[in-house]
Amino acid sequence: MTAVPDVKAALRTQSIELPSWAFGNSGTRFKVFAQPGVPRSAEEKIADAAQVHAYTGVAPSVALHIPWDRVDDYAALAAHARALGVAIGTVNANVFQDDDFRLGSVANPDPGIRRKAIDHLLECVDVMDAVGSANLKLWFADGTNYPGQDDVRARQDRLAEALREVYARLGGDQRILLEYKLFEPAFYTTDVPDWGTAYAHCLKLGDRAQVVVDTGHHAPGTNIEFIVALLLREGRLGGFDFNSRFYADDDLMVGAADPFQLFRIMHEVVRGGGFGPGSGVAFMLDQCHNIEPKIPGQIRSVLNVQEATAKALLVDAAALDAAQRGGDVLGANAVLMDAYATDVRPLLAELRTEQGLDPDPVAAFARSGYAERAAADRVGGQQAGWGA
Amino acid sequence: MTAVPDVKAALRTQSIELPSWAFGNSGTRFKVFAQPGVPRSAEEKIADAAQVHAYTGVAPSVALHIPWDRVDDYAALAAHARALGVAIGTVNANVFQDDDFRLGSVANPDPGIRRKAIDHLLECVDVMDAVGSANLKLWFADGTNYPGQDDVRARQDRLAEALREVYARLGGDQRILLEYKLFEPAFYTTDVPDWGTAYAHCLKLGDRAQVVVDTGHHAPGTNIEFIVALLLREGRLGGFDFNSRFYADDDLMVGAADPFQLFRIMHEVVRGGGFGPGSGVAFMLDQCHNIEPKIPGQIRSVLNVQEATAKALLVDAAALDAAQRGGDVLGANAVLMDAYATDVRPLLAELRTEQGLDPDPVAAFARSGYAERAAADRVGGQQAGWGA
Amino acid sequence: MTAVPDVKAALRTQSIELPSWAFGNSGTRFKVFAQPGVPRSAEEKIADAAQVHAYTGVAPSVALHIPWDRVDDYAALAAHARALGVAIGTVNANVFQDDDFRLGSVANPDPGIRRKAIDHLLECVDVMDAVGSANLKLWFADGTNYPGQDDVRARQDRLAEALREVYARLGGDQRILLEYKLFEPAFYTTDVPDWGTAYAHCLKLGDRAQVVVDTGHHAPGTNIEFIVALLLREGRLGGFDFNSRFYADDDLMVGAADPFQLFRIMHEVVRGGGFGPGSGVAFMLDQCHNIEPKIPGQIRSVLNVQEATAKALLVDAAALDAAQRGGDVLGANAVLMDAYATDVRPLLAELRTEQGLDPDPVAAFARSGYAERAAADRVGGQQAGWGA
Amino acid sequence: MTAVPDVKAALRTQSIELPSWAFGNSGTRFKVFAQPGVPRSAEEKIADAAQVHAYTGVAPSVALHIPWDRVDDYAALAAHARALGVAIGTVNANVFQDDDFRLGSVANPDPGIRRKAIDHLLECVDVMDAVGSANLKLWFADGTNYPGQDDVRARQDRLAEALREVYARLGGDQRILLEYKLFEPAFYTTDVPDWGTAYAHCLKLGDRAQVVVDTGHHAPGTNIEFIVALLLREGRLGGFDFNSRFYADDDLMVGAADPFQLFRIMHEVVRGGGFGPGSGVAFMLDQCHNIEPKIPGQIRSVLNVQEATAKALLVDAAALDAAQRGGDVLGANAVLMDAYATDVRPLLAELRTEQGLDPDPVAAFARSGYAERAAADRVGGQQAGWGA
Repeated sequence: MTAVPDVKAALRTQSIELPSWAFGNSGTRFKVFAQPGVPRSAEEKIADAAQVHAYTGVAPSVALHIPWDRVDDYAALAAHARALGVAIGTVNANVFQDDDFRLGSVANPDPGIRRKAIDHLLECVDVMDAVGSANLKLWFADGTNYPGQDDVRARQDRLAEALREVYARLGGDQRILLEYKLFEPAFYTTDVPDWGTAYAHCLKLGDRAQVVVDTGHHAPGTNIEFIVALLLREGRLGGFDFNSRFYADDDLMVGAADPFQLFRIMHEVVRGGGFGPGSGVAFMLDQCHNIEPKIPGQIRSVLNVQEATAKALLVDAAALDAAQRGGDVLGANAVLMDAYATDVRPLLAELRTEQGLDPDPVAAFARSGYAERAAADRVGGQQAGWGA
Repeated sequence: MTAVPDVKAALRTQSIELPSWAFGNSGTRFKVFAQPGVPRSAEEKIADAAQVHAYTGVAPSVALHIPWDRVDDYAALAAHARALGVAIGTVNANVFQDDDFRLGSVANPDPGIRRKAIDHLLECVDVMDAVGSANLKLWFADGTNYPGQDDVRARQDRLAEALREVYARLGGDQRILLEYKLFEPAFYTTDVPDWGTAYAHCLKLGDRAQVVVDTGHHAPGTNIEFIVALLLREGRLGGFDFNSRFYADDDLMVGAADPFQLFRIMHEVVRGGGFGPGSGVAFMLDQCHNIEPKIPGQIRSVLNVQEATAKALLVDAAALDAAQRGGDVLGANAVLMDAYATDVRPLLAELRTEQGLDPDPVAAFARSGYAERAAADRVGGQQAGWGA
Repeated sequence: MTAVPDVKAALRTQSIELPSWAFGNSGTRFKVFAQPGVPRSAEEKIADAAQVHAYTGVAPSVALHIPWDRVDDYAALAAHARALGVAIGTVNANVFQDDDFRLGSVANPDPGIRRKAIDHLLECVDVMDAVGSANLKLWFADGTNYPGQDDVRARQDRLAEALREVYARLGGDQRILLEYKLFEPAFYTTDVPDWGTAYAHCLKLGDRAQVVVDTGHHAPGTNIEFIVALLLREGRLGGFDFNSRFYADDDLMVGAADPFQLFRIMHEVVRGGGFGPGSGVAFMLDQCHNIEPKIPGQIRSVLNVQEATAKALLVDAAALDAAQRGGDVLGANAVLMDAYATDVRPLLAELRTEQGLDPDPVAAFARSGYAERAAADRVGGQQAGWGA
Repeated sequence: MTAVPDVKAALRTQSIELPSWAFGNSGTRFKVFAQPGVPRSAEEKIADAAQVHAYTGVAPSVALHIPWDRVDDYAALAAHARALGVAIGTVNANVFQDDDFRLGSVANPDPGIRRKAIDHLLECVDVMDAVGSANLKLWFADGTNYPGQDDVRARQDRLAEALREVYARLGGDQRILLEYKLFEPAFYTTDVPDWGTAYAHCLKLGDRAQVVVDTGHHAPGTNIEFIVALLLREGRLGGFDFNSRFYADDDLMVGAADPFQLFRIMHEVVRGGGFGPGSGVAFMLDQCHNIEPKIPGQIRSVLNVQEATAKALLVDAAALDAAQRGGDVLGANAVLMDAYATDVRPLLAELRTEQGLDPDPVAAFARSGYAERAAADRVGGQQAGWGA
């Protein structure tokens, strides 16, 4: 296997982005459960995110969701983040929480509503300029619920037109990360249902349009690591929205449902040159902590990604290549499984100690009393949440 | 095929139950879109449901959801329904919309919360007594999101205990209809995920516990009509929650996604003695009209069930039996497909005319001006909806 | 709805291609059941296919599978087909039935085996030249069964190289139809698992490389008609391999499992300009008649496609467009469903009579005595089948 | 976590049964690849199986498949096995590889064919008597491919009748293990598609009828460990057919596709009292080595089950229970994950050394030269395989 010092050196460069919305209340259509100490503002969300970085050392940036994180002074928000030791990362556009968007946003049959949606996307680029963000993440809830409801092809034309206008507005160091999703909230067609559709649109936009892989957005049985390998080969992997699922877009903690899949994904990332500074691949979390506490849920998720990465880095690439070329099915599989079977927790504890961190981030955060203080202090006001 | 007069006579006995909650606003976790004229009370929901019956003639009862339809005087509510030409049907218990139920209701690890949940179920039987309902429909959102979160077997024990207590409280003409669902809102285990689990619990309770098949609650690829045939053979098919789906529990209008599947289900119902007075099978709708208008959505759904039923009744049972016994694969399939390929809309229009109804319920309701009046009158107050 | 004469005129131009292998024995890994009268040669398969065309009038060509249909004199085979009233259509390459291909064909880690596979593909182009075929259909069983078994990216490189060599060999009026399949016989990765991968390869090859949609080759829940609309918009829909499925690649008769899906697909084909002479979209059947008789199974399949096409042609495009643009969800859906609910069998019977055919192809073939004669005559020799 | 000596003691009692057919050639409907050294007789299959036990120490029995393993003298076969250090275990009945079974075996519409099928099942009990086997494993390929093809309910009646006759024939220490499977080779209905159907039949038969869980026989998304917990609670878990899958019934090596799922299954087995002598749960492998060598493939599979078992035994049951009762979602999940993240290979190597085995069974078998000798010796004759 790869030498441990090399693995540690690589792990030191890792950077996982946290979603501001993971710290607010979330739930299903059946119920959003309120939790004590939940943030009431973008500033408090960033403060919570900064805790995750403080204990793990690998989560130095926070993604915003507009309008959920709309503030008057974005420069001040960015300064607030910096003061807490983190940066503002990707800006996520939200064009699905307005009654006008009942039949879609940029693909709506009504041109007035399309205009409103595009204007919101352009506003998001303004926010990017203000906070110094390079990534505009676009996920569209657009689609239809019933056969015949709208014209599949016309909706593609409208989508393409909107994307062109937004792409043209980007600064030279900014890019579009286009996300796909098979279904939900639309239940018959989704306008960007799969990686192929996202890829086809990106190709027409230009080099600064790339595909985002949300690990919960696929049909049952889809081989996600294959898509990762393909997009890296095409130079079109913009990043990940990590989470995990047993059934649909469950948005559970990444690594909770299928840690071996997460390892296989990270293996393809490492093998395809998607890991490390300069790779251009953004590693973002996008998940909901419906029933578990938010900050510990994020810490656990970050650790799960870090463990999968460590295992992927341990894979003996030379031995794997030799077995693969020799057609040794069991031998090649065994090389991969050796890395996966390794318990990397001691290695990571050591790495943290070397970085001046507590070897056990979960326990250290629990001991800190932050959660109790937040619950005591954050009284009154409106808890942040989906749609709030 | 079966003679048309016989088909018509059978169709005259059909009875489809409407869900009160289908007339309120609904949506996904991403957004609940508000619609004009939506009811603000249980009484207004029943009034809307009565419209569906007035135009279709086959929807004479309305199911309640407690606490969504909680009122001070249930006898008055029942009288209100009767005055509008409909009856109150099944009572649905809701033990998922309270912060206490974060980790489950009757299967919660906390005995105090279990008590609270059971007490709510018992209250629902009180409501049944008050409105004269024979059916208690139980669907539990209970389950877990993470491996290890709770003990699968202990949760079954708690569930069984709660069911026993509720079953003991039933009046002699009342029954439990136990519903199963693969996932959502729980994403790792659901305490009643499949028909087998519901069936095993019903067996232990007694004859007045039966299984409800919600057509959107299965794993991909599940053959629902097979389950229907099996439960009828076992005498344990309590009824249906009809809706349709392309992906998960999409709750689209029944018959919208796969009309052939609906026909196959109705074929097994007819073949297995589940159709007609005395069969004891309740045909209920349970769906959401997230983007389409509510009353027309219910009318369309009722018509879809009626059309599928008419086709199922048309199947030439003798010819089918002969082909099946003879091992004539294509011939037997052709007998079934002949009925399915038939356009039954003229037959149904004729039936409605004979019953003194407009042959086209959709157009007749649209012409009536009811929707416009509701939108004008129902101003102020809180629109009913999921959780309202 | 569209005027019936226009629908009939369009239907007269329809052309569905039959697969020679559908007339041989087929089965699952558990058992291939032998049937009486099954062809023993390519010539006999073509004779059977000609029967399907004789009774339906819409199946004027037969696809070959090489090496299953390998003969010494392809020009004679083509003449034999012409004499029976049909033409030879697409040539299908088969690089999966040789012990050498255990770890793949064009993507095999062994360069010698890759060479052998490519040579077979080039031989198929020779066959195309000899029989006058314009279409080379490529489906690769290539893939891996275990994580780590081979390098995903290297396999893509090898695949691309092979495709380039074959594409370069094509005559000016010939094209590659590249098929994708999610899984089977490979169970971890498939080298062309989805339309996106096929599309990406076709883009790099050139205009004469297009994607084939096999209706049984998708993950559960995939919206196939969406892919059809997309590929037509991109000018990359080469054709269909029609069949139907309830679970995986079941290869049942097209239209048997979900006739509504088949209608929706044909609706997108018609709407997107994929129907009619000059559209360049090949409508091929690719299915197995494991338990039902072969020729009647093909006749039923052809009729199913024809019925779905007739319904799609009946859709009132102007009314649909108006409802879609107006955001009338239920109205737009109703326009589509009106066409689907129509019983088109009388219209098709009429069309056949006008064409001098029997209005009921199934009954007419049964009366003809062909099946009985084939069973009596085709004694001795080796029945054709998968792998034969 | 549980103390290592206790874990080792428990592991010493483990017993995994090997399938004789895993040593023969297998494949998909597309191709069965021949491998060197494959057995040509039941005796050679047992010899190969004995190798797996010799190196792992936990695979002391071999299951037979009749008629694949039909011999003249079963007592001699049992003695042959004993001489090689293994025993003959479960007898598997095969009623799907005869042209008569095209439309089913015990559920066939033809009573003569049903009789033939039942007679074969009775013959299998004779074999059990002769070899001293206590388990009759029944899997039926029975089902239908097309809607209407046969009567779902009549098929259940026929199936029940056949099961009753076979059950009555069992000796007092013999039992029926009834297996279910969602689909394949039947593609519309399967007569025993899910655990609920198998369970309902077993209930009616009596205590000596139990359900077998084949880990590849479920719909996508099915929670298998939940079924395991339920069947153990009902006293109806007869055993496992282990293998793994990414898509359908892929029959890959157990633990290869989702090792975490295998661990969760073993956790429920241990928690529910299904592990250890006297539990009555049979741990069997049922898988195909289509592209990898057979004996090493079985060794790897046995090791995968052993590793998952070791991890399940390591789970700190007291800590888990406390966290679960306290509603500590993340804490309870962490207890489970701690055991899963542990690298148990050193513990298992130690255990083997204590048992006088080589710590690395894979390497030891490779060094032994057995495979090379088998390839040299087993020349001529017909290689065993599916259907052979």
